[in-house]
Amino acid sequence: MTKKLDHLSFSMYLASLAEMVEAELNRLLPAEDERPEIMHRAMRYSACGGGKRLRAILVLEAAAICGASREKALPAGAAIEMLHAYSLIHDDLPCMDDDDYRRGKLSNHKKFGEGIAVLAGDALLTRTFAVLADLPALIGVSDATALAIIREVADAAGTAGLIGGQAVDLLAEGLAVDNTDNGQNVETLRYIHTRKTGALFRAALRTGAAIGGVLPPETRHLDQYSEYFGLAFQITDDILDVVGDQSKLGKKVGSDERLQKLTYPRLFGLEASRRMAEEAVEQALAALAPYGEAAGRLAELVVYIGERDR
Amino acid sequence: MTKKLDHLSFSMYLASLAEMVEAELNRLLPAEDERPEIMHRAMRYSACGGGKRLRAILVLEAAAICGASREKALPAGAAIEMLHAYSLIHDDLPCMDDDDYRRGKLSNHKKFGEGIAVLAGDALLTRTFAVLADLPALIGVSDATALAIIREVADAAGTAGLIGGQAVDLLAEGLAVDNTDNGQNVETLRYIHTRKTGALFRAALRTGAAIGGVLPPETRHLDQYSEYFGLAFQITDDILDVVGDQSKLGKKVGSDERLQKLTYPRLFGLEASRRMAEEAVEQALAALAPYGEAAGRLAELVVYIGERDR
Repeated sequence: MTKKLDHLSFSMYLASLAEMVEAELNRLLPAEDERPEIMHRAMRYSACGGGKRLRAILVLEAAAICGASREKALPAGAAIEMLHAYSLIHDDLPCMDDDDYRRGKLSNHKKFGEGIAVLAGDALLTRTFAVLADLPALIGVSDATALAIIREVADAAGTAGLIGGQAVDLLAEGLAVDNTDNGQNVETLRYIHTRKTGALFRAALRTGAAIGGVLPPETRHLDQYSEYFGLAFQITDDILDVVGDQSKLGKKVGSDERLQKLTYPRLFGLEASRRMAEEAVEQALAALAPYGEAAGRLAELVVYIGERDR
Repeated sequence: MTKKLDHLSFSMYLASLAEMVEAELNRLLPAEDERPEIMHRAMRYSACGGGKRLRAILVLEAAAICGASREKALPAGAAIEMLHAYSLIHDDLPCMDDDDYRRGKLSNHKKFGEGIAVLAGDALLTRTFAVLADLPALIGVSDATALAIIREVADAAGTAGLIGGQAVDLLAEGLAVDNTDNGQNVETLRYIHTRKTGALFRAALRTGAAIGGVLPPETRHLDQYSEYFGLAFQITDDILDVVGDQSKLGKKVGSDERLQKLTYPRLFGLEASRRMAEEAVEQALAALAPYGEAAGRLAELVVYIGERDR
C-alpha cells in the first residue's frame, strides 16, 4: 500500500483539527486572570497557540474509527496535548536539553524563569489527570472507561514510557559512538524512542479507541500502527535536526549534535535513515489495512510525517 | 477541649503507622533493578526511608472514622505520600528554594543531579495517579469512588492548591515587609499556606473519607479540622525554621530568612505566632467533637503538631 497525499486538502484538514483542539485547550485550562495569574499564563503560553496537535489528532481519529465522533474525543485529545506540553517544558530546561526556543518562540523557562517553568509543567501534568477524571461528566463515558484511560496515560507518561525514555536519553548524551559495538547503541536508541515518543502515541490511539468502547487487546492494529508511526516520526525528527530549516521548525537545529545525542542519522547515516523512515511508513499503512477507508486520515497522517524531511 | 498527649504511646503509634506506609510505598514503587534503574533509585530515594507520613496518616485515620479499615486505606495513603515526595523534590531544586538537605540526607538533585531530580518528581506525581486509578483493583472501591479521589487529589495538587501556593511563595520571596501594609502580607501568607500545605491535608482526609463511603459535603467537620491542622502545622513549621535544631529536623534551618520568605514569625513575631498555633490546635480539636472517641488519633495528631516547636 502506497499513498499519495493531496497536500492542500490534507493541510486544510490538519488546520481545522488543530483549531478545534486549540479551542478545547482554551476551554479546559484555567483563565489567565484567575489567581495565581502567572501560573495560568505560563501554562497557556506552552499549551496553547501552536504545535501540530498530532497526539490529539491520533485520539480523535482512533475514536472515529471505533465509532465515536471526533467532537466527543476532543477533551481527551486536549488533555493529552497538555501532557505533551508539560513534557516539552521540562525537556527544554537548562538541566535537560537546554533549549531556548520551541515552536518559534522562547521556551517556557526563558520567558517565565526556571521555577515557574518547572511548576507550569507540573500543573499541566496534573491538569491532564483532572480533565481525564472528568470525562464521565464532560462526554458521558462510563467511570470504567475514564479509569482505563487514566491508567493508560499514566503508564505511558511514567518510567516505563515518556519519563523513562527521557531519562535514558539524558544519560546517553555525549556517549561516544563506537562502531564496533553499534548493536548496543541501536538498542539504546530504540529504547529511548519507543518510550520518549512512541508510548504517548500509543496511549493517544488507545484513548480514542476507549472512547469508542474498544479496549486492548482489540486495539492491536492501532498499537501496531503507533509503533511504526512513532518510528517514522522519530527518524524524520532526527533527520530534520540535521538538515532542517530553523525558521520552519520553530526550534534550533543541530542541538542533537551539540548534545551528542544518539540519533538515527548518527548511527546509520542520512541515506539509510531516510530508507528506514520510508519502510516505517509502509509498515504503518499495512497495519491500518483491516480498517479500510475508515482509517484514511491516519494513513494520510503517517505519509505526511514520513515526508516532512523533504 | 484540651488534650494531654501520652508521648510514649503516641510515638509508638506514629512509628507503627509510618512503618506500614513505608512497606506499602515499597510495594507500589517500581523496583530499583527495573530499567531505567536510576529513575527508580531516585524515586525511592525521596519517597522511601523517612518522613513522618502525616498525609498518609490523615488518609488512614479519616478512613477509620468513616468505617473503613486503615489497611484498606494504605495504598491511597502511600499514593499521597508519593505526591508529597514529588513536591519536596521540586521545591528543593536550585530554581526554587535551593535546599541541599531534606530529611537528614542530601536533597534529590544534590544526589542525582538536577535533570534526574526533575524527572523523579514528575514520575512520582504520575505514579500517584496510576495508583489511585488502580484503587478498584487494589482495595475494591467502586470506579466512582476512585474517580472522586483522583479529582480531589488533582485539584489539591493543581494551581488552585499545592502548585498555586508554591508559585505565590516563590514570587513573594524577598518581598520587603512593610508594617504599614501588613494586611496585604497576611493575606498573601494565608493564600500561600492554605494552598501549599492545607490543600493536600484536606485532600488526604477526603480521600480516606471517600474510601469509607463518605463524600463532600458530608466531610465538612474533617474539612474544618484540616484547615486548623494546616494552620497549626504551618505556624510551627515557620517557628522551627527560626528556633529549630538542624540535626533533629534533617534540613537546614534559617532558610526562610535567607530567602526572605513570608512567615508567621516574620509578620507576627515568635510569641504571637506561638499563641496562634495554640489557638489553631484548639479549633482543630473542636472540629473533631462530632466524631467523639473515633477521632482520638486525629486529636492527638494535631496536639503533637502544635507541640513540636517546644
